[in-house]
Amino acid sequence: MKSLTYTLAFVIAANCAWGQSSTQHDMKKYTKVPAGYVIVLRQGDNLFDELKTFAQDEKIPSAHISGMGFVNITFGFFDFKEKKYNPKQFKDVELASMLGTIAWKDGDVSIHAHGVAGDKTFQTYGGHILEAQVSTGSLEILITVHPERFERKRDEDLGADVLDINP
Amino acid sequence: MKSLTYTLAFVIAANCAWGQSSTQHDMKKYTKVPAGYVIVLRQGDNLFDELKTFAQDEKIPSAHISGMGFVNITFGFFDFKEKKYNPKQFKDVELASMLGTIAWKDGDVSIHAHGVAGDKTFQTYGGHILEAQVSTGSLEILITVHPERFERKRDEDLGADVLDINP
Amino acid sequence: MKSLTYTLAFVIAANCAWGQSSTQHDMKKYTKVPAGYVIVLRQGDNLFDELKTFAQDEKIPSAHISGMGFVNITFGFFDFKEKKYNPKQFKDVELASMLGTIAWKDGDVSIHAHGVAGDKTFQTYGGHILEAQVSTGSLEILITVHPERFERKRDEDLGADVLDINP
Repeated sequence: MKSLTYTLAFVIAANCAWGQSSTQHDMKKYTKVPAGYVIVLRQGDNLFDELKTFAQDEKIPSAHISGMGFVNITFGFFDFKEKKYNPKQFKDVELASMLGTIAWKDGDVSIHAHGVAGDKTFQTYGGHILEAQVSTGSLEILITVHPERFERKRDEDLGADVLDINP
Repeated sequence: MKSLTYTLAFVIAANCAWGQSSTQHDMKKYTKVPAGYVIVLRQGDNLFDELKTFAQDEKIPSAHISGMGFVNITFGFFDFKEKKYNPKQFKDVELASMLGTIAWKDGDVSIHAHGVAGDKTFQTYGGHILEAQVSTGSLEILITVHPERFERKRDEDLGADVLDINP
Repeated sequence: MKSLTYTLAFVIAANCAWGQSSTQHDMKKYTKVPAGYVIVLRQGDNLFDELKTFAQDEKIPSAHISGMGFVNITFGFFDFKEKKYNPKQFKDVELASMLGTIAWKDGDVSIHAHGVAGDKTFQTYGGHILEAQVSTGSLEILITVHPERFERKRDEDLGADVLDINP
């Protein structure tokens, strides 16, 4: 009986950690298309975690991102004096637009994405995306894959990374 | 003479019903390109009607939509308690961005599109598009076609449809 | 000595006119990918000048534009009575979204682009782009090229140009 309790506790904990029902968990989050991939994220999915796992697993050399959905999102505006992003979060908003690129930096996937989000009054907020998680809805993304590997490289004058398309 | 009057009345009425000059009416609204199709809608065209007719006629299995133009547009924000969209219309606005997907549900074309619209003061509004009609301008759209047929399926937990990419 | 001074003055003036370091100047601004081209513009680059030079040099018949970056941007809202754009500039803003098309008119490249820009409070502004210059950052663009040459043609009823996809 004790063993069964432990087993049940483990199963419940594991499901909570995934933040999804087991049915959802069995579903693929992306599928190949001629342009690249279509990704569909669901409630609780973290945008950048999912994109990084995807890019690593599928060995994406570089790509363009175009998508929309329903999210909790944190935008950041870069302070060039302080060399850091000032963040602000917006909860339960329609991601009206997300455009960005996938590249690499120091062996890691490097994602740069901008977005525009609309609230229940249809007022919009936008800029550089620091983080996003799917809220009560989904997030549909088209990944247009390029066979060339692009690196993001530090531009010391800017204090920011720039996509390097020169091999 | 009476017959001529009737004929003229018919021709004028028909043109008014189309909401376009006969010259415009003879023009194709879309053309094939390697990525899929380019669609150009004109004043009076209803976005979703045109996209549905296009997707049915061209048997589009699924697709990504990316476009911009000048429209009268109705956004809707989903009320998860009431399970319905609260709508708001914005007239004569620049559609600064439209991103979405074409899929199928119960044998019918199912379109999901988000947008951002800017008014004459450049203030923007955005979110889920319930309806849009081209105003005094045009609407240019790139349709990136995928050969896989995707269905939208009800997610009972959400009370909303989600794009199903699992065959 | 005088000759050397002149030469140095010329070199310095030329570099200032380019608005870039010589290192940046040696870098390619675009590269070919299966979908078309990836363009990366840098601080000081003028969006439309660069797109026009690119389209002329690469003989782009027509294309879809999708991008994002950090810019000084001027939007214009068309006054249909006066048949002119009322402009407004926004400085040092995140270009959260840019979508548009490349076509031709009277033998010249004709670019039509819409955008949404977010300021440091994440408030957004958007509409028809009259001009944009990269500010302290970059501008990443995917150009999806079509092999068909499209022309923009005057629609006299509108008093504006419309993309003509009918050969």
